[in-house]
Amino acid sequence: MREITSKDNSLIKYTARLQSSAKLRREDKRFVSEGLRVSLEALNGGVEVETLFVTDEALSKHGTELKPLIDASREVYRIPQKLMGCICDTKSPQGVVCVLKALDNNIDFGTINNKYILLESIQDPSNLGTILRTADALGVSGVIMTDDCCDIYSPKVCRGAMGALFRVPFIHIPDAPSFIEEFNKTGNSFAAVVRNASQLTDADFSGSCLIAVGNEGNGLKDTTVSACKYKVTIPMNGNAESLNAAIASGILMWEMMK
Amino acid sequence: MREITSKDNSLIKYTARLQSSAKLRREDKRFVSEGLRVSLEALNGGVEVETLFVTDEALSKHGTELKPLIDASREVYRIPQKLMGCICDTKSPQGVVCVLKALDNNIDFGTINNKYILLESIQDPSNLGTILRTADALGVSGVIMTDDCCDIYSPKVCRGAMGALFRVPFIHIPDAPSFIEEFNKTGNSFAAVVRNASQLTDADFSGSCLIAVGNEGNGLKDTTVSACKYKVTIPMNGNAESLNAAIASGILMWEMMK
Repeated sequence: MREITSKDNSLIKYTARLQSSAKLRREDKRFVSEGLRVSLEALNGGVEVETLFVTDEALSKHGTELKPLIDASREVYRIPQKLMGCICDTKSPQGVVCVLKALDNNIDFGTINNKYILLESIQDPSNLGTILRTADALGVSGVIMTDDCCDIYSPKVCRGAMGALFRVPFIHIPDAPSFIEEFNKTGNSFAAVVRNASQLTDADFSGSCLIAVGNEGNGLKDTTVSACKYKVTIPMNGNAESLNAAIASGILMWEMMK
Repeated sequence: MREITSKDNSLIKYTARLQSSAKLRREDKRFVSEGLRVSLEALNGGVEVETLFVTDEALSKHGTELKPLIDASREVYRIPQKLMGCICDTKSPQGVVCVLKALDNNIDFGTINNKYILLESIQDPSNLGTILRTADALGVSGVIMTDDCCDIYSPKVCRGAMGALFRVPFIHIPDAPSFIEEFNKTGNSFAAVVRNASQLTDADFSGSCLIAVGNEGNGLKDTTVSACKYKVTIPMNGNAESLNAAIASGILMWEMMK
């Protein structure tokens, strides 16, 4: 196991840049996991581990749990705790950081009776992380994201998703309407809107289906709503203008899956 | 309209301390709203406005909208933008800040067919804010919180609640089990648990009822689960250990209200 002690080391600098630059993550198809638990979940999810950084403290405290990560990583480096601060997004880094290969887009559209959520232009990493976690918990078949959603590999999404990132199949698409038109040939699509739609409780989610949820502030684009076979709305008795996008998605997925 | 220009002004210092100290907010029964929209929602929700701080920029940009706030506030001060930074929790303060009187505990338990959510030891301000917003959107009759929940008047909760704080009735209680035992005399109580319970879809939420949701990491205390008449669980087909507390509460409230 080699050791890095300088913050000017090129691998440390590269990892720090991966954490801060969505562009670099996209170009290099790499991202970073922080902490033992998420890193193990990545490994168990079949993600390729390129580099493992670990502190002596973590090694002595979690030696047994770290074993499979150490064995699987192409390169392992011991680094001092102070260097952890350079490559971690969290304030209290836990002493375990991995550089991972991005997952391939991996939804299998071949089977019947699949249930998908399609996210258009979701901008808040906490929302995306929470939606992934909910999709995982409820057993949604896959998450479809337009390219202009916030980066699924950002540190905030990875944390919020609590490992769901490595378990829920997902793909990116350039454009929702054309994807939905293709999907309509074999399944039913539902646009989540805030008014002028049939109530969610009346929707028939049998067979393969997809619910499309739009941007936090603006909702779905008109062309995306038009492309969907049906519109659904969450009936609200109260005063709020709308539900938080993650909560709305949670209720929609719950109704689709139950 | 008077003017304050020094960050050493005692009112500026007091407001800054209100933002950072839950203890002071509790003792003085005061809290702070940031931004025009939230401050107006507070006013419309019947909250007493003690002090309004406003910048010249905000005055010239939002003079008309500010009028009712200016009229209702006991004291109004013009302050420079740089002082906004001292009394705001957000990074880009909008030029409008109010010191508000805390709301009284204000649930009316006298009516029948009411629907409540009880939160035990919820620790994350974002979760509490989101739960309030969802309760407001779905028309939940009131939110009951144990005293050890995070402070409902913290800047993060106020932001996350998007004004729901001023619309949803809520109360604090010292202890969940004794409250639930009293509630059971006229309504049905449901403990949200992760296993060994009937499925949420089988629960009968007619009449007055209450769903109890526990701490993010540990769930409900055993004594609280025992005090409830029924247990319910959100059936999960997927892999996640559990849903995020705000999403779980959202699905539970949705099922109770629909």
